[in-house]
Amino acid sequence: MRVVLDGMGGDYAPKEIVKGAVEATEYINDEIVIVGPEEEILEELKKCKYKGTQIEVVDAPDMITMEDSPVKAIRRKPNSSLVVGLNMIKDGEGDLFISGGNTGALVVGARLILGRIRGIDRPALASIYPDMTGGEACLLVDAGASAESKAGNLMEYGLMGSIFVEKVWGREEPRVGLVNLGVEETKGTSVTKDAFQRLNNSHLNFVGNVEAREVPRGACDVIVCDGFVGNVILKLTEGVATSVFKLIKNALMSNLKSKVGGLLVKGELTSLKNDFDYEEYGGAPVLGVDGPVMKIHGSSTATAVKNAIIKGIPYARENVVDIIRQEMLLLAEESEVEEE
Amino acid sequence: MRVVLDGMGGDYAPKEIVKGAVEATEYINDEIVIVGPEEEILEELKKCKYKGTQIEVVDAPDMITMEDSPVKAIRRKPNSSLVVGLNMIKDGEGDLFISGGNTGALVVGARLILGRIRGIDRPALASIYPDMTGGEACLLVDAGASAESKAGNLMEYGLMGSIFVEKVWGREEPRVGLVNLGVEETKGTSVTKDAFQRLNNSHLNFVGNVEAREVPRGACDVIVCDGFVGNVILKLTEGVATSVFKLIKNALMSNLKSKVGGLLVKGELTSLKNDFDYEEYGGAPVLGVDGPVMKIHGSSTATAVKNAIIKGIPYARENVVDIIRQEMLLLAEESEVEEE
Repeated sequence: MRVVLDGMGGDYAPKEIVKGAVEATEYINDEIVIVGPEEEILEELKKCKYKGTQIEVVDAPDMITMEDSPVKAIRRKPNSSLVVGLNMIKDGEGDLFISGGNTGALVVGARLILGRIRGIDRPALASIYPDMTGGEACLLVDAGASAESKAGNLMEYGLMGSIFVEKVWGREEPRVGLVNLGVEETKGTSVTKDAFQRLNNSHLNFVGNVEAREVPRGACDVIVCDGFVGNVILKLTEGVATSVFKLIKNALMSNLKSKVGGLLVKGELTSLKNDFDYEEYGGAPVLGVDGPVMKIHGSSTATAVKNAIIKGIPYARENVVDIIRQEMLLLAEESEVEEE
Repeated sequence: MRVVLDGMGGDYAPKEIVKGAVEATEYINDEIVIVGPEEEILEELKKCKYKGTQIEVVDAPDMITMEDSPVKAIRRKPNSSLVVGLNMIKDGEGDLFISGGNTGALVVGARLILGRIRGIDRPALASIYPDMTGGEACLLVDAGASAESKAGNLMEYGLMGSIFVEKVWGREEPRVGLVNLGVEETKGTSVTKDAFQRLNNSHLNFVGNVEAREVPRGACDVIVCDGFVGNVILKLTEGVATSVFKLIKNALMSNLKSKVGGLLVKGELTSLKNDFDYEEYGGAPVLGVDGPVMKIHGSSTATAVKNAIIKGIPYARENVVDIIRQEMLLLAEESEVEEE
């Protein structure tokens, strides 16, 4: 496999990206291509004292920033690491693209450059969501690639998410749940009611509607929702969790007794906070585009980059994109039979 | 004012409801009517050693349970405390109705029995949402009365919520915010983009789009969203906050050092948890129905009932329903002028 890394994507790029790539070479034999301003990348490789041949650098002098409008950035910066990297996947010069850059540009770029998998109406951005009761994280689809979804889109999200979790995370028969107002199938909007029926009639391991209360409690392996709700879930979780942690910190500093107590429990609270860092899961896929593309967090450090490379390889090796393509063909055939 | 209390609504009814009513009489001179099975209510009043004349009991032998389907319950149980109480408001025999019973039945009952305020397309259920940074709570509208909303509905939610927070909570020029994917006015669905323009062109103190991350951080006084998103916000907040508290509790029990620390900080953590109990704000209104109706939590204790009565009276006294009616007339006139 040949992993293509966006050398300029992320808050700590290119330093941590290059460092992560070098670290990854100690665990895998696959080739790694770092795309970015050649001199800068080579300089970083030098700092890492990298002397091997597993890492290659491809020059891409332009920069897409977090402030760039996605569509304009893709059109006007053909020599950016993002566009050059995605074109390598399209042209068969790479098998997996990983970026920590501008999320909107990554999603738009993947859609424009790679195109959609035949039959997929809307590609989706997935996100890794922690199980706050201590279990395994799950995959939330869509995390915000589209603001509005039809029932068919939600069905696609469930299907793609399930294939990814099975093939890349290695979980058998992933439990797929639909975010809804209540567990009863009669609950929700016309779109969620229709999506419930589609998911329920599919071969997926659909566990039914999931109330938002259960989302942080490991209710399922794949959480399906439209991009608006996905955005609310991700941002609200961050807002509530950080607020609660801050409140606790303040409460612990309120008097001498609690300050002493706070010092004694500091280690536990810190390790707890680290539990929410799901670097170990690697990146989150952009699903439905015609090639394996992964997004890593903008604040990714070398460790996160290294993990994303190692954990991301099955996305390419297991032919996840091909499997989605075949499943979509089957779905189309089934609905044709039904219509006859 | 004459406050009508649903004597059978809530997990601790009628005991805590009656106790709360008796406690309220120590603070207010308004009349309180408790609706429910007469003997049972009188028995509870006796237990409270209540001998005054401020509390009256109106017989309503039927019970609506949490399992009852809302529409059926309203139609088939005309002698339930909910239906009898709402009819009293309709007939002018009461000025404010408060219930801790079946939420769906309360919303449906209020809509069917009291009807909508002229011009209001969809009544909404409000909910009190805490500021987790320590500030004042805000009012979230809609908390789930409707699963889907049009832009006009969101505009109505903002208007009604603003009037309520100003008149009942006594806050001047309440800040109204719209839950959306990003702060830019171009973000979101066609519905939220349209709602942004309507709210922005209104006389409300509209602070713009609010990302879900900011919702627990006191971003505004009135949070506007459709009922689906409102439901997700309320339930996810509960899920994340309780999960984080549980994780912390477990972390504190993990070893002897942290156990000692945990004991020292126990008081602070408990008082923190109590901060999330917003009993002090009283009930949350069902907005847009033609009479003041308030919902209190199903697990309300006597203190919550007492607070809901005392804090709810301005909902009737300040003629909030009339103000909403007049504002809707103005809105209708304005749009007629625009159309000419």
